[in-house]
Amino acid sequence: MALTAQDITGVVGIIPTPSIPGADRWDVENSVDLDAAAKLADDMVRGGVDVLMTNGTFGECAALTWPETEAFVATVVDAIEGRIPVFAGATTLNTRETIRRARRLEEIGADGAFVGRPMWLPLDSKGIVRFYRDLCEAVPNLPVVIYDNPGAFKGKISAAAYEQLSKIPQVVASKHLGLLGGAAFFDDLRAVNGRIRLLPLESDWYYLSRLFPDDVRACWSGNVACGPAPVVRLKELISEERWAECQQLTHELQDALEPLYPNGDFPEFLKYSIQLDNAQFRSAGFLQTGPTRPPYINVPEDYLEGARAAGRRWAELEARYQTSSLETKGTS
Amino acid sequence: MALTAQDITGVVGIIPTPSIPGADRWDVENSVDLDAAAKLADDMVRGGVDVLMTNGTFGECAALTWPETEAFVATVVDAIEGRIPVFAGATTLNTRETIRRARRLEEIGADGAFVGRPMWLPLDSKGIVRFYRDLCEAVPNLPVVIYDNPGAFKGKISAAAYEQLSKIPQVVASKHLGLLGGAAFFDDLRAVNGRIRLLPLESDWYYLSRLFPDDVRACWSGNVACGPAPVVRLKELISEERWAECQQLTHELQDALEPLYPNGDFPEFLKYSIQLDNAQFRSAGFLQTGPTRPPYINVPEDYLEGARAAGRRWAELEARYQTSSLETKGTS
Amino acid sequence: MALTAQDITGVVGIIPTPSIPGADRWDVENSVDLDAAAKLADDMVRGGVDVLMTNGTFGECAALTWPETEAFVATVVDAIEGRIPVFAGATTLNTRETIRRARRLEEIGADGAFVGRPMWLPLDSKGIVRFYRDLCEAVPNLPVVIYDNPGAFKGKISAAAYEQLSKIPQVVASKHLGLLGGAAFFDDLRAVNGRIRLLPLESDWYYLSRLFPDDVRACWSGNVACGPAPVVRLKELISEERWAECQQLTHELQDALEPLYPNGDFPEFLKYSIQLDNAQFRSAGFLQTGPTRPPYINVPEDYLEGARAAGRRWAELEARYQTSSLETKGTS
Amino acid sequence: MALTAQDITGVVGIIPTPSIPGADRWDVENSVDLDAAAKLADDMVRGGVDVLMTNGTFGECAALTWPETEAFVATVVDAIEGRIPVFAGATTLNTRETIRRARRLEEIGADGAFVGRPMWLPLDSKGIVRFYRDLCEAVPNLPVVIYDNPGAFKGKISAAAYEQLSKIPQVVASKHLGLLGGAAFFDDLRAVNGRIRLLPLESDWYYLSRLFPDDVRACWSGNVACGPAPVVRLKELISEERWAECQQLTHELQDALEPLYPNGDFPEFLKYSIQLDNAQFRSAGFLQTGPTRPPYINVPEDYLEGARAAGRRWAELEARYQTSSLETKGTS
Repeated sequence: MALTAQDITGVVGIIPTPSIPGADRWDVENSVDLDAAAKLADDMVRGGVDVLMTNGTFGECAALTWPETEAFVATVVDAIEGRIPVFAGATTLNTRETIRRARRLEEIGADGAFVGRPMWLPLDSKGIVRFYRDLCEAVPNLPVVIYDNPGAFKGKISAAAYEQLSKIPQVVASKHLGLLGGAAFFDDLRAVNGRIRLLPLESDWYYLSRLFPDDVRACWSGNVACGPAPVVRLKELISEERWAECQQLTHELQDALEPLYPNGDFPEFLKYSIQLDNAQFRSAGFLQTGPTRPPYINVPEDYLEGARAAGRRWAELEARYQTSSLETKGTS
Repeated sequence: MALTAQDITGVVGIIPTPSIPGADRWDVENSVDLDAAAKLADDMVRGGVDVLMTNGTFGECAALTWPETEAFVATVVDAIEGRIPVFAGATTLNTRETIRRARRLEEIGADGAFVGRPMWLPLDSKGIVRFYRDLCEAVPNLPVVIYDNPGAFKGKISAAAYEQLSKIPQVVASKHLGLLGGAAFFDDLRAVNGRIRLLPLESDWYYLSRLFPDDVRACWSGNVACGPAPVVRLKELISEERWAECQQLTHELQDALEPLYPNGDFPEFLKYSIQLDNAQFRSAGFLQTGPTRPPYINVPEDYLEGARAAGRRWAELEARYQTSSLETKGTS
Repeated sequence: MALTAQDITGVVGIIPTPSIPGADRWDVENSVDLDAAAKLADDMVRGGVDVLMTNGTFGECAALTWPETEAFVATVVDAIEGRIPVFAGATTLNTRETIRRARRLEEIGADGAFVGRPMWLPLDSKGIVRFYRDLCEAVPNLPVVIYDNPGAFKGKISAAAYEQLSKIPQVVASKHLGLLGGAAFFDDLRAVNGRIRLLPLESDWYYLSRLFPDDVRACWSGNVACGPAPVVRLKELISEERWAECQQLTHELQDALEPLYPNGDFPEFLKYSIQLDNAQFRSAGFLQTGPTRPPYINVPEDYLEGARAAGRRWAELEARYQTSSLETKGTS
Repeated sequence: MALTAQDITGVVGIIPTPSIPGADRWDVENSVDLDAAAKLADDMVRGGVDVLMTNGTFGECAALTWPETEAFVATVVDAIEGRIPVFAGATTLNTRETIRRARRLEEIGADGAFVGRPMWLPLDSKGIVRFYRDLCEAVPNLPVVIYDNPGAFKGKISAAAYEQLSKIPQVVASKHLGLLGGAAFFDDLRAVNGRIRLLPLESDWYYLSRLFPDDVRACWSGNVACGPAPVVRLKELISEERWAECQQLTHELQDALEPLYPNGDFPEFLKYSIQLDNAQFRSAGFLQTGPTRPPYINVPEDYLEGARAAGRRWAELEARYQTSSLETKGTS
């Protein structure tokens, strides 16, 4: 039975695509470390992640070849063994290619598709709605999570477009900017009116779930690839309405991530997010991965050092909350 | 023998990809009107275009499937019969896919590749240079024209990057913004120092060729798809240094194009350039084409009317200069 | 005794500067309707506003002559009779002129100054901190409310600058963008650490006061010039933690303001905010005012109609909550 | 008899406002070094500058008090003794204050006013035209040079606005961005149709005067404050149509200015242009001046070093062309 918005609850982890040494060369052929991918996927489930998504920005949807993506998604699906839903990335440069890929991902066993719109030109609200309607008409049984990333796709999805999108039954959620996008989260939440799940960042989750407990019942996190324990801990604290601890942990997450943004400049981070996020993951040491694929390889060395620091800081949180979760959970 | 910058001289025409009725549907399979494509290519040669490029922005590089692009380029190459060089578009979301396509285009018979960089994230100067170096290393006999489009590729190529790029022997030219990019053309021209051809818009060509007669010996034009006679006429006037007539014709071109830009707002035009350029082409009536492919379909109706007006205006210029060229050329 | 952050609690109303007929002419000399100003100030106190600020953007700090500002502030101060604090606007093009004005406003009887930084060039964090330090050193007994308006002053005040600014004892508050500025409010709140009051918009107040009850104890509102009852009602609901009613009223405020933003485009609104806000005020009918002063006169007619609709909608809320407040308060 | 566009020919020098030591303090009272100002003005005339303008951005129109500006302009006017026209800056935050200042500058003896529009909010085309019409109606005998600076005044003057502005008889010229603004110069030039003089930067002058010899007969230069000889030399070369030498000298000017722009980033330069331009002037040593006034004081140290290098490079050009001009002019 198809997934609905109600099934998107808890921590939606977005994972990178582990690479082999030499993955940064133009002549690499199979750049995915499938063993590391299987382990990472399994670690996500065992660590408490509730929903998995693949092949967003730092998951290198852009830089993978399609055969690599197929192999990676198949590996992840196999490793998950149906324990949690998997939404696989299918963003491309056009409607028909996204449809082709979504169909294939469905065959491979993905539970849904995680899809941003084509980005050569921006699309206006009408164009965005038509794109997702076309996709859902073409692949009528596949649940879809919208990828709302203004930098990648050259514009924010408007509240008016969200209202229309939320009425497409297959659309179950949207990976949202959260508070980074300002008041838009509030407007968009009102526009979708509970029909789809808007996912804020894990570091905004406490705030928004406290204000909208019925609606904001899930967050997305890429930092789970540095270790899922801090975010899973946050989920527990939110469910128990331990607000002071939620605030404290939220501050800890922010402090860990602070050096990821070069001189605190978020737009500057976005220019290199593939390279920096993966450097953070490597540094945290939770997963095994090599270099990023071409063309997203270069990054100023001082930016890189910040990303590595963020990874080390998160690893400390992982160590702390892995233990505390064990204590909390007792022998479970 | 491989083409060099010296071979890129005169009018570099960039053509759209003619479509069949229903090409705007997500379930269309072969959306290219190959007969119209062959006729268009032939008309370009017969009309005086000196170099042909395909599958840029309005040529729907993004929205075509790869099999469609292959069939289209093969058809164009066949129709041209080697009379002029053909650079086929090979822009994709990553280095390796662009390499794969460029190799295949070479097999099909394209004389070179017309390539923009991947656009999910912006690339800095180092990343841009590495991308083109990787491409040229991988396809070592294929001449390359760079596609410098800040809107599509999230940033202008810097003068420093141009200096490096111009030293890659396979790179022969760059489709440039011309004066729309301000003083950058001047800086970039100095940086490439004659090693590659920088191509301005046809409506800037007179100005820049008068100032830099040795360097600016070619322009690019998409408006040739509304009829090449005005731009070919401009080429003649420039070669004869008939400056007052160059200025007059330049103003005529600008006046014809003026309604293409909604309320004179160029950035607003860029949001819909695929749809608007193709509406202009349809309205001019020089070529046969249907709707644009998904997702680039929607466009505000009043913008569309402006594009159609621009097409009609250009058709008038085509009629005028087709005749005058005949008169000028006499019995040739 | 000087005001502190603790004194900035409740509704901080920002008022326009009522004008006489013909105030839009370049040869008008005394454009301020002082009687209307006195009545407006008194109505604010009687309506429940807790702190008053003057001469921000829509209060036409820019377009008033200095003698007009002096007369206006003197009138307001007299009308208030010390019942609530008055912060008078003293934004100019340079540090020394702002100091001169702030000194004079202190003499006139203002309780504090409401000051944005000079805007010919943007100022970086260091420059912003130095500007406010210079001001406070020069006028050492005058409390200051910072005006943080990225559009007017060419940039957002950073969290790092806020940390420094909050340590200047005279700085008591900042008129903030609230959620419009995204996650910045959260970062800035953490940076000031309770030392100064960050003021969100009234339409964000419920959210932020629920999350940060100890810190977000005041909001700013210009819409009080359309009638203060809705915002005063919100204050009561917040103080009683009637969250569902807070949410409901917040939605009512948003719905009333919705047509103020042309086609929902907030940046477009900002281009004409002086003209549009004052048209809203005139339409609401709570206060008496004429046209805006030069050069902020022109505005597209359809934008104007939206502003008038917003005024009418707010007037309906005013009518509703004026009554309900009376009922609530009973014989008080 | 009033000046017309025809009188604006040659080098339009824009000068800084020399300061005394301690001018960066908030409590400085008379920050202008009037002796240095008189000498600078005289040096401009003697060095070959044809028209003088004061109190633009780096001339610290924003940061001077009005009494300082009055004293400075009076000093300059006295020093010039009518040898060349002087346009004094009168940009303020509103129409009426600019009128007041323009009237006073006329009394002091300025030949015209150099005026940018108020900048708290942007003005649209209609608002811009109304502002300059109001000014000219109020001060009907004063010639006006428009200050078209998109960064300072929050937007570029459109071609449509230029058409209207050029029909106001008192408007004689506009300080334009030149090629930095891209194709706009070409559109604006066509729109004004010879009725007013559009002034490009000195480093664009050769290009534009060669293309439009009847129209582009003057340039503006702030670098004359590092020594006017290079720009005066360029004027001579242009008038003699020695194009190759024009190109060579243009490249020399560009090379001298190159380190002024931090890492080649022009927008970054604009954030600190007051501080950087004046640092360049100090370093060149042609004039005597102290620090800039508050609040435009801070600037990153490495940016400052670039500005100083640009000053030193220009000083070398000054030395070279001062000599060469003498040689050229022989005994004149």
